Amino acid sequence: MSDRTALDPSGAFASRHIGPGDDDQAAMLDALGYGSLEELVDDAVPASIREAAPLDLPAPVSEAEALARLRDLAGRNQVLTSMIGLGYHDTVTPPVIRRSILENPAWYTAYTPYQPEISQGRLEALLNFQTLVTDLAGLALANSSLLDEATAAAEALTLSRRASKAPAGAPFVVDTACHPQTLAVVRTRAEPLGIPVVEADLGAGLPEGDLFGVLVQYPTTTGLVRDDADLVAAAHERGALVTVAADPLALCVLRAPGEIGADVVVGSAQRFGVPMGFGGPHAGYMAVRDGLQRSLPGRLVGVSIDADGDPALRLALQTREQHIRREKATSNICTAQVLLAVIASSYAVYHGPDGLTAIAERVHRAARTLDRGLRAAGVEVVHDNYFDTVCARVPGRADEVVAAALAAGVNLRRVDEDHVAASVDEVTTAAHLDAVLDAFGAEADAAGLGAELDDAPAVAAGLARTTPFCTHPVFSSHHSETAMLRYLRRLADRDVALDRSMIPLGSCTMKLNAAAEMEPITWPGFAGLHPFAPLDQSEGYRELIADLERWLVEVTGYGAVSLQPNAGSQGELAGLLAIAAYHRSRGDEDRDVCLIPSSAHGTNAASAVMAGMRVVVVACDDQGNVDLDDLRAKVAEAEGAIAALMVTYPSTHGVFEEAIGEICDVVHEAGGQVYLDGANLNAMVGLARPGRFGADVSHLNLHKTFCIPHGGGGPGVGPVAVGSHLAPFLPSHPLVPECGPGDTSPGPVAAAPWGSAGILPIPWAYVRMMGGEGLRRATQVAILNANHVARRLADHYPVLYAGRNGLVAHECILDIRPLTKATGITVDDIAKRLIDHGFHAPTMSFPVAGTLMVEPTESEDRAELDRFCDALIAIREEVDTQPDLLRGAPWTASAVLADEWEHPFTRAEAAFPGTVSRADKYWPPVRRIDGGHGDRNLVCSCPPMEELVDQQP
Amino acid sequence: MSDRTALDPSGAFASRHIGPGDDDQAAMLDALGYGSLEELVDDAVPASIREAAPLDLPAPVSEAEALARLRDLAGRNQVLTSMIGLGYHDTVTPPVIRRSILENPAWYTAYTPYQPEISQGRLEALLNFQTLVTDLAGLALANSSLLDEATAAAEALTLSRRASKAPAGAPFVVDTACHPQTLAVVRTRAEPLGIPVVEADLGAGLPEGDLFGVLVQYPTTTGLVRDDADLVAAAHERGALVTVAADPLALCVLRAPGEIGADVVVGSAQRFGVPMGFGGPHAGYMAVRDGLQRSLPGRLVGVSIDADGDPALRLALQTREQHIRREKATSNICTAQVLLAVIASSYAVYHGPDGLTAIAERVHRAARTLDRGLRAAGVEVVHDNYFDTVCARVPGRADEVVAAALAAGVNLRRVDEDHVAASVDEVTTAAHLDAVLDAFGAEADAAGLGAELDDAPAVAAGLARTTPFCTHPVFSSHHSETAMLRYLRRLADRDVALDRSMIPLGSCTMKLNAAAEMEPITWPGFAGLHPFAPLDQSEGYRELIADLERWLVEVTGYGAVSLQPNAGSQGELAGLLAIAAYHRSRGDEDRDVCLIPSSAHGTNAASAVMAGMRVVVVACDDQGNVDLDDLRAKVAEAEGAIAALMVTYPSTHGVFEEAIGEICDVVHEAGGQVYLDGANLNAMVGLARPGRFGADVSHLNLHKTFCIPHGGGGPGVGPVAVGSHLAPFLPSHPLVPECGPGDTSPGPVAAAPWGSAGILPIPWAYVRMMGGEGLRRATQVAILNANHVARRLADHYPVLYAGRNGLVAHECILDIRPLTKATGITVDDIAKRLIDHGFHAPTMSFPVAGTLMVEPTESEDRAELDRFCDALIAIREEVDTQPDLLRGAPWTASAVLADEWEHPFTRAEAAFPGTVSRADKYWPPVRRIDGGHGDRNLVCSCPPMEELVDQQP
Repeated sequence: MSDRTALDPSGAFASRHIGPGDDDQAAMLDALGYGSLEELVDDAVPASIREAAPLDLPAPVSEAEALARLRDLAGRNQVLTSMIGLGYHDTVTPPVIRRSILENPAWYTAYTPYQPEISQGRLEALLNFQTLVTDLAGLALANSSLLDEATAAAEALTLSRRASKAPAGAPFVVDTACHPQTLAVVRTRAEPLGIPVVEADLGAGLPEGDLFGVLVQYPTTTGLVRDDADLVAAAHERGALVTVAADPLALCVLRAPGEIGADVVVGSAQRFGVPMGFGGPHAGYMAVRDGLQRSLPGRLVGVSIDADGDPALRLALQTREQHIRREKATSNICTAQVLLAVIASSYAVYHGPDGLTAIAERVHRAARTLDRGLRAAGVEVVHDNYFDTVCARVPGRADEVVAAALAAGVNLRRVDEDHVAASVDEVTTAAHLDAVLDAFGAEADAAGLGAELDDAPAVAAGLARTTPFCTHPVFSSHHSETAMLRYLRRLADRDVALDRSMIPLGSCTMKLNAAAEMEPITWPGFAGLHPFAPLDQSEGYRELIADLERWLVEVTGYGAVSLQPNAGSQGELAGLLAIAAYHRSRGDEDRDVCLIPSSAHGTNAASAVMAGMRVVVVACDDQGNVDLDDLRAKVAEAEGAIAALMVTYPSTHGVFEEAIGEICDVVHEAGGQVYLDGANLNAMVGLARPGRFGADVSHLNLHKTFCIPHGGGGPGVGPVAVGSHLAPFLPSHPLVPECGPGDTSPGPVAAAPWGSAGILPIPWAYVRMMGGEGLRRATQVAILNANHVARRLADHYPVLYAGRNGLVAHECILDIRPLTKATGITVDDIAKRLIDHGFHAPTMSFPVAGTLMVEPTESEDRAELDRFCDALIAIREEVDTQPDLLRGAPWTASAVLADEWEHPFTRAEAAFPGTVSRADKYWPPVRRIDGGHGDRNLVCSCPPMEELVDQQP
Repeated sequence: MSDRTALDPSGAFASRHIGPGDDDQAAMLDALGYGSLEELVDDAVPASIREAAPLDLPAPVSEAEALARLRDLAGRNQVLTSMIGLGYHDTVTPPVIRRSILENPAWYTAYTPYQPEISQGRLEALLNFQTLVTDLAGLALANSSLLDEATAAAEALTLSRRASKAPAGAPFVVDTACHPQTLAVVRTRAEPLGIPVVEADLGAGLPEGDLFGVLVQYPTTTGLVRDDADLVAAAHERGALVTVAADPLALCVLRAPGEIGADVVVGSAQRFGVPMGFGGPHAGYMAVRDGLQRSLPGRLVGVSIDADGDPALRLALQTREQHIRREKATSNICTAQVLLAVIASSYAVYHGPDGLTAIAERVHRAARTLDRGLRAAGVEVVHDNYFDTVCARVPGRADEVVAAALAAGVNLRRVDEDHVAASVDEVTTAAHLDAVLDAFGAEADAAGLGAELDDAPAVAAGLARTTPFCTHPVFSSHHSETAMLRYLRRLADRDVALDRSMIPLGSCTMKLNAAAEMEPITWPGFAGLHPFAPLDQSEGYRELIADLERWLVEVTGYGAVSLQPNAGSQGELAGLLAIAAYHRSRGDEDRDVCLIPSSAHGTNAASAVMAGMRVVVVACDDQGNVDLDDLRAKVAEAEGAIAALMVTYPSTHGVFEEAIGEICDVVHEAGGQVYLDGANLNAMVGLARPGRFGADVSHLNLHKTFCIPHGGGGPGVGPVAVGSHLAPFLPSHPLVPECGPGDTSPGPVAAAPWGSAGILPIPWAYVRMMGGEGLRRATQVAILNANHVARRLADHYPVLYAGRNGLVAHECILDIRPLTKATGITVDDIAKRLIDHGFHAPTMSFPVAGTLMVEPTESEDRAELDRFCDALIAIREEVDTQPDLLRGAPWTASAVLADEWEHPFTRAEAAFPGTVSRADKYWPPVRRIDGGHGDRNLVCSCPPMEELVDQQP
């Protein structure tokens, strides 16, 4: 695609992003009977939705040019010293962790560990995370991360509601001293569920009346370390659960919430080595007490055993989550923040309990120094008990003090006109403290003050931590950089990610995450910003965000985009909340029916429930298409109540439904709005725009279509795009109103104004380097690649659905059910045998049980597509010739080197299927894992070292 | 070591760099019978050399602070658009290559591939490099890189001298139109060998008289593409060899020098994706015609077979190099630029022949555009035939034009007061050309001019390339980023580097290369500078260099340091040249004897010969110490002629010789200078300073002691440190006199003024983060670790030498000879069996044949040291129980999965020795390699794909 006669080296990136070269594309097209991509696409995509006009996007630039422009944008962000606090703190990402995890494709291109045998490395890192959180919280069990602290608190709200026996209509009581963004997200989530939220100063005790749950911040948003033991006891007496939103660094030196009976602890692990990144992504966390295990939302890693009885890790209680329980759902969470949880847990592994304690003590010492300096100057300090945040009362002078600090390069928090708070952190130096003291008019002698401090912490007796944490050996074995480097390599080597082989996961769009897209996210100019820093410090970010919003509007054909939702599920919720608010704004108070086709992803229904809607299922025909008659019938049944239809396009069956226009019309005629799930947008970019062919809202998955890596199961970014009529109802933010539409908004759906802003340079670079034509070409090749695979496999496995002209869209479903019926070989057997070939399995049993859904994406070249097809064809032969070889898969080195070998196939046949180079073989670290065993014997924190590691003869 | 009570987070890096924590250090000391590191070191290091004063270095800073300071320094370099040329060109490092190679510890922490079974990945990348160079040069054979273009030309000088039958005293004839730094280095190297160098305008034909070699630049330094066919023929007629110093990008579109009979082609592969880095490191290259194979200096990768008869790569003709032939040496090269050659060859793999040609054509098009624009404005363009460099004649206006371009952000080359040259490159845009045209007063319309160009190249008929290159499939199979990413991962996974396990190589100091040290080298502010850019553009670099020089002076106790030598061998040469020049300056013309102990590294003698000295060997006693009586006798024999003694300290036997002071005195009394080889400086930093206990010169290995990674066999940096009396004789540079002492200098020893400046941020960061006390502690722990290993292994393998109190210095030699004599098991058998344990072998048979030399360094923690000792102890047991298991090692997965197994040990015993976790096993990709087979059947470029890769059943 590069133009040899051009003088400037631009436009070449698309040919790197797209796997097959021109010759291979031609050959593949030829085999399908087409002469060009255009012809293929004309046959595959219904003319009714096609858009002829090219995308109006900037002309593509080279990787070097895109990096130069991003460097310029980064340079226009001012990275000052942040003491704003509010749940975001500067932290030192140890360089070995930055390089070996955050900048390492072996970690960031991995998928969610649903195939545990090839995910043991990240599962161990997540188990470390759970152990860390469990220990710090002092509770029984923690999940492997949530999206952020605010949404974690919102999850605690619904968990408490389910677990409490308080009467319906009882409120959730939240402390005034919680972080404001946390309170706002809790309110956004409570409102559609009809749950009252009562805000009160819980330092003065609980309000009167019923209540089912209590939320407190620990330390409080202005820094107070309060003894909430009596509050917890009182709440329990009244049948309420208590959630503590806690700072994990503070917990290293403070009494664990579990010790006073907290039921739930939530928070953010950001300050454990994860850059602030202007708001995210970071790992939220949640821990629960014994008895609440099965109510815990999100993903949970547990210890089980493999086919040889050896310990092995996998996601526990997985059915709770992977197949979200549709309209019975209590949470729509289907993403974690794996990459960030891995960083946070690795930070803990690297520092160990002593190191973490030392950091916390140093931070506390800095706060005490500041406290002394202020008091010495006669400044009133509000709290006597604090960890890292010193709140000063300066009547009428808050703006003046904040301005003086800013002039010295430090951002303080203006609490109100009379109060200023300073949160110190791991990077705080005496010079920083001097700047702050000076801003308050105090003597700038932090070094002198610090030297005079004794060792007594500034918390009341009994509030300091006395219990150990992170006592597992993994937290004490990797403290030198060399040891840490090797530990991280060892973990990475256990896993299969995109840097080894194709990950053909239907509906997940595992495409290239180019190095040029990834490099900027660790630059200080993007990584270093606090999300609530004064807006004139984020000029570069805001220009990048404005560009990206504009480009996504252009790509989707809608009128406005919000980048706030930090996962697809949150984008869905935001979109449905916008629809609900729109109806309400028109006086349509009674529209609460959300129509969902039976083939939809479970998240759709869960989101609808969270948005306060009633789910009505619409049938699909045997091609997986929406049954129009049933749709009309359901619409008629709920006349006047239709709020929305949620439909995925191309369908979850990988087909461009011809009737999409008609479907939209039916819904619109009934007064409803059309929510088009953007999961499969990769099949449409540059060819069709949902905002133009009938839909009103979509969420996009920037971690699918727009190249944000999956990170081993997060971060995701799920912006919501809406027609102009819905723009007033997009998310807002209490602290940064500039990010949203104002009072008409249903509120924030994430803690940070622009969600996971820190990774938005990735889609920015992707769009900027591809240009409109490159994006369109990518879509065409994605369709070509899917049809190539479908055609090559059709003689070996039936392809379940096809659209017009026998073509699929960007993915295809292989029907394994007949084979299973005839031979007993299951999708699982095939998936596990693919591991022996070095491949991640396709999506299993979604959207149809007993099938495999393959999505190759445009980034796979012909050789890799064919190697994958060869593997599946070889497996099909083994079904007939060596079924036990499949049932025994995957084969570890240890298994094939057993002293005795009595199988009807050779060791080499088990280990070296024909697609594999013997020298480059990927060896799974464990054999097939028994998930049920683990669920029956739930162990979700680090077991004794020797059980996990010692697999010697 | 971190101080919990401090307010600032500094000083913690040393505890990360040093492997064993305080508790482990205490336990290891206790086992050795010591209560503290101080006590151990007091017993190990002779008091006579100890220095009590702490190092006067800046207090240590944290990693974050060091990075912030380096960011500031990088920001003080001005990265303008470079059109200076002179062998250095801007280039686009593909981000996937930057991230997957240059920023990937799996590549940069690897050692030289002397153990080929665990080096197949980088050997393949180097074979690709050789194939690329061979194809472009049109010659029979290329080596796997040299240090830079200038030293490669100097190697061609000596090669030509050896291969030519021209009479002694015949000159080497060099074209005036060669790059000036190349000519200067050639002169530096010719002078001590007594070889006359005649400079002439070879465009006018050869000068009269005898000659043994000719050197031309292609294109010439001012850009002319000249037809040298007649020149080559004339030189051959007169018995001379012709060396062409060629630009590899130009060779993509120009006739290969081999086609006109060139005997040798040298050059730099820098512009194939390697950043300029203010001068280096880059990969120099050399190719030779058929018949000169065995004269080729440097390393050569060749194809051979392994024990199973499968193809396998290894260094060919290795005996030429590893055991440099001492006083018979013709080159002292013992380092290549592997990491940079890997980048350059990967650049070629990624672009492929079509892509490289397209880049060359685009560059040429830009040059033609410039040419047209200048001519249109009436500017005289000097050459009609050119590739990328347009040389304009602007009588009296050169300074003015250069200044005008500079004002527009472009550096041009001021050839002389009447001539300006502009070299365009891969990153040149129309806007850049417009700036240049404008500076010349021409109309700035590059886009318009470019559009009017036809396709005819601006070279005479017959000078364009007509032969294909890079036709091997490897250059056409990895053109998408996804494919490239996976190819690089696959290669890396075949190898063992420091990121997997300890590399206990005696005399090589394989210590941690910390991420914080490595990160800055790829920042544009360091990577983007041309070495000959105006000095006011390199303020940051020059401050960094001045810091580093000052710190190295402090560490060594000398008076001055030159950072120019880009390998230890070149540092040696520079040091000896300084000694020779010093003697000459004092009228001591006859001092030409260099005393070298029999235990010395072969490079010492080779360097002495290159410096024009006669080598006289001094005997060692049976402890490996210099025999003082023999020294006195040799000194007496050569009375008045003693130039120098070269001695390694601690000795190559890993011992602190007690007599070092006396040795120095003897030499000084005889009028000689003491050259102390700094290879083992890691045993002395902070404890003793060679410049204070009697030595006059040392070269340092920044790639050993100061944390520059080995890069798989280069880059190295070998600065030379000298007493103040020798400072006037350090290297200089013809284009950047500020780097050296002026006219008293013997000249440059490398192409760039500060050598491999681009990687000097690494040692800067190391020293800055460790501080004096940290460096001293590192040395102490290096000694502790070596003694820990020696003590643990002593019952299993005799430790050959020990110094005072039975202690070794920082390494120890295990004597395998008695075992070999008793059982036939060799060092090779032990080394290869260590591979099954996942370890790189210790140094084999150096300095004593039949031994293994172990240097653990301070960066290895106790667990890894013990795992290594356990492996050696297990092997010792296998010598008695399963000798054939050792003889068959290493065991590939393929070998242990053979259908038949008739060994007396089990498959699992072969594959899973006791130190190995089965799940994390490293599998060598090949079995033991037959080096002799490859040397007898020399194949040194890519063989047919299937031979290498297809190892299926």
